[in-house]
Amino acid sequence: MTAAGAPSEAAAPRRRGRPSRTQTGNGPATRDQILRAAREEFSEHGYAKTSVRGIAKAAGVDPALVHHYFGTKEQVFEAAITVAFAPALQAPAAIDDGPLDGVGERLTRFVLGVWEDPATRAPLLAIVRSAVDNETAAAIFRRLISTQLLGHIAGRLGLPDAELRAELAAAQLVGIAMLRYVIQVEPLASADVEHLVARVAPVVQGHLTGA
Amino acid sequence: MTAAGAPSEAAAPRRRGRPSRTQTGNGPATRDQILRAAREEFSEHGYAKTSVRGIAKAAGVDPALVHHYFGTKEQVFEAAITVAFAPALQAPAAIDDGPLDGVGERLTRFVLGVWEDPATRAPLLAIVRSAVDNETAAAIFRRLISTQLLGHIAGRLGLPDAELRAELAAAQLVGIAMLRYVIQVEPLASADVEHLVARVAPVVQGHLTGA
Repeated sequence: MTAAGAPSEAAAPRRRGRPSRTQTGNGPATRDQILRAAREEFSEHGYAKTSVRGIAKAAGVDPALVHHYFGTKEQVFEAAITVAFAPALQAPAAIDDGPLDGVGERLTRFVLGVWEDPATRAPLLAIVRSAVDNETAAAIFRRLISTQLLGHIAGRLGLPDAELRAELAAAQLVGIAMLRYVIQVEPLASADVEHLVARVAPVVQGHLTGA
Repeated sequence: MTAAGAPSEAAAPRRRGRPSRTQTGNGPATRDQILRAAREEFSEHGYAKTSVRGIAKAAGVDPALVHHYFGTKEQVFEAAITVAFAPALQAPAAIDDGPLDGVGERLTRFVLGVWEDPATRAPLLAIVRSAVDNETAAAIFRRLISTQLLGHIAGRLGLPDAELRAELAAAQLVGIAMLRYVIQVEPLASADVEHLVARVAPVVQGHLTGA
């Protein structure tokens, strides 16, 4: 979510220095426009095949503006997935919002809910595809889930091996997302959500707070 | 693992009909050479970006020979991942080789073992990357794990919802593979294998044979 000061000269050789007031136009609107284009480009082509030039073209702006608002391609990606990841980052609320012995079910319902909704599933798929395919994207993804999601869960648990517990619980849910929504293996892909919650919530709870 | 009769004319316009004896040379050796090149090309570039022409070039043969031995790009991919997947297809042995109440630990040890070994991890990573990124690759992967792996486990269990049980158990192991070996989230990425087996085997057992 950082905005670098000056645009990269290498990526935009024809414009040097800070874009003029005319170029930047209506700042917040232009920024949103670039972010939306970035999200679509990363979703469609993945991290490796997306370029700052391509994002600029899709947003209808000069590449220098993309650098002006976001900095490098890595920084545009991080900004784009932070927005796309916003629903997933509400998971801490799902963690905190009730007693600890119901946290497994709340987290399971939350994750399945984010994946069941096509609006939130599409950006998540884009993130997973990029992270599986590219080390830079994986590093950004890793940092986001570690600091914002798993770190929060671990903090709430207050157990000595809380981080590993959070990750094993996450692994059960990540695996279900992979097989049900990405690879689409049957009968899991068509299984009833409530049936899955009944089967999976106790496992997630066990990882988080079990013996 | 099928070999199409005649090479595709579209892909190899300069050579029509069955390759001559001279062209096919030492059949089995040439076939292995193509298969090895295919595995490397798919590993490096993923399914979408790999072409029959590229595989032929890497193997030092005419594209018509690739079509001759394997058929379409889909069929080359299936043959290549069937070989790469061969260690994983030994999982049925891990399932069968002992009492049912130890199947969770045997399967967990088996999956972690395949991923811990760099020689078997590389082709698995290539398959996961291709399957996440491409629908055709996902379909082939889906068919392989459904028929060869999960179907076998389900058959051994002999329970009414055995297939879903096998998939939920697989999901726990797939998620650990994703977070530990692909995304490499800590502390899971560096956790001791025996500690993981102690935590995960009971979960896998529970999915497979629990209440």
